[in-house]
Amino acid sequence: MRALAESARRKESPLVVGLDPVPSRFPAELGGLPEPQATLEFCLGILDAVEPYAAAVKPQVAFFERLGPEGMEVYAALISAAKDLGLPVISDVKRGDIGPVAAAYAEAHLRLYGATAVTVNPYMGSEAILPFLGETRRQDVGGGIFVLVATSNPSSEEIQQTTQPPLHEVAARLVADLGQRDGDYLDAGAVVGATRPSVGRRVREILPEALFLSPGYGAQGGGEEEVLPLLDARGGGVLVNSSRAILYAHEKTPLDYRQAAREAAREAREDLRSAGVGF
Amino acid sequence: MRALAESARRKESPLVVGLDPVPSRFPAELGGLPEPQATLEFCLGILDAVEPYAAAVKPQVAFFERLGPEGMEVYAALISAAKDLGLPVISDVKRGDIGPVAAAYAEAHLRLYGATAVTVNPYMGSEAILPFLGETRRQDVGGGIFVLVATSNPSSEEIQQTTQPPLHEVAARLVADLGQRDGDYLDAGAVVGATRPSVGRRVREILPEALFLSPGYGAQGGGEEEVLPLLDARGGGVLVNSSRAILYAHEKTPLDYRQAAREAAREAREDLRSAGVGF
Repeated sequence: MRALAESARRKESPLVVGLDPVPSRFPAELGGLPEPQATLEFCLGILDAVEPYAAAVKPQVAFFERLGPEGMEVYAALISAAKDLGLPVISDVKRGDIGPVAAAYAEAHLRLYGATAVTVNPYMGSEAILPFLGETRRQDVGGGIFVLVATSNPSSEEIQQTTQPPLHEVAARLVADLGQRDGDYLDAGAVVGATRPSVGRRVREILPEALFLSPGYGAQGGGEEEVLPLLDARGGGVLVNSSRAILYAHEKTPLDYRQAAREAAREAREDLRSAGVGF
Repeated sequence: MRALAESARRKESPLVVGLDPVPSRFPAELGGLPEPQATLEFCLGILDAVEPYAAAVKPQVAFFERLGPEGMEVYAALISAAKDLGLPVISDVKRGDIGPVAAAYAEAHLRLYGATAVTVNPYMGSEAILPFLGETRRQDVGGGIFVLVATSNPSSEEIQQTTQPPLHEVAARLVADLGQRDGDYLDAGAVVGATRPSVGRRVREILPEALFLSPGYGAQGGGEEEVLPLLDARGGGVLVNSSRAILYAHEKTPLDYRQAAREAAREAREDLRSAGVGF
């Protein structure tokens, strides 16, 4: 995780910009292009726009997968372009399978496509997590994984909070057991939503040294204050993701989409820092 | 699920052949080809070989994803070839994300690539399941989904069986709540391993009308008898997956890999039927 932490410190920003490209929301100027090309153009524009204010970017692979093999070419090109700009890439793949299958996913996203980190689903237990850690340790370039622990969506309660102990505590303990130090943080981090402060506080107790990736900020309704319970003892340790509020900022202004996204990213970073979300 | 049930009845077979192509295990005759081409050739040979005895095939998408965009072309070609042979396709994607992201995955695998059914991970709750059901209901071609409920791998216990109530019961109830009838079964089925009979029996109590997809038969160590606790009141309702024991049967015989796979599939079907696993 040291590559992500170093980038956040260098940019003085906990902000991660999620790349969730939805062609129907692209600006009119990209309207004439086929979807894969429009997606590439749009995302390249966003990368350049947000680079000064983002610690990392987080492509959501589903929006590339729906475009077929050509979409995966776009995904590859974007990861490469982000890294050329010095932006670490957290691929939001949420893969969750075991043994040789997990190893094949790790090979695909961490080695072939070259993401710095990936998100991982823990439903099948440590066998679903260790092959990703194995690949990241083998590479030793400061990458890592973020295990889904407490997600920010409403229906997560149906699974993650209906048992004793709650599933988010079980998953957090698994992350604590499997992670190893890499710089100031474990190489296994946690996805922890900013929408349920008491849950976030509990997960932070179990994982004092883990890097958190927190969705639910911006368009999903979370505010800066709701990130505060997730912070570590040094007042940092949380990468805060915003996707739609930055990508589609142009819908609410007459600005060019790149200028609108840059301004939205700058504001998100300032709002987070002003609220006390450091790095 | 009616397309899968009809195929199983027509073939008088509960057998699903998993397509987990691992190039290092391909027969020597494919050794000279680049991995994507070898993978396509190998899998096309397997499809033809097992067609008489298999109710469906189950490509494991990770083994195609690791080959990059070209691997996704192979995945597309294989799904198309299987359907041309009349074999329904269960894409083992285990995707688990919410809302528009889940809808994008459903669009990719059920619409663009054309799988009959997919596997889905329930960690994020009903929001991760409903978009897949929405796509399958919109198409109305007798497809469906299989939600991970009780998987067969050893470390699944760390997550699925350490809480009260156990997570597999919570997930099974979610499937019961969300599934709708499609022929004799719900359109939402469950992945239930054949390696823990008491767990399987409990999940069947909660889901008397669901189709189960059961891994862990053959190479993973489960036997025919261990499938029996999963059967429904009519003595059916379970699709039993075997991957490596069929794909790599040639490693233990001097036969051509296709002949070896056909023989292994024939035997697996007979062993299952003899043990009382009907359809």
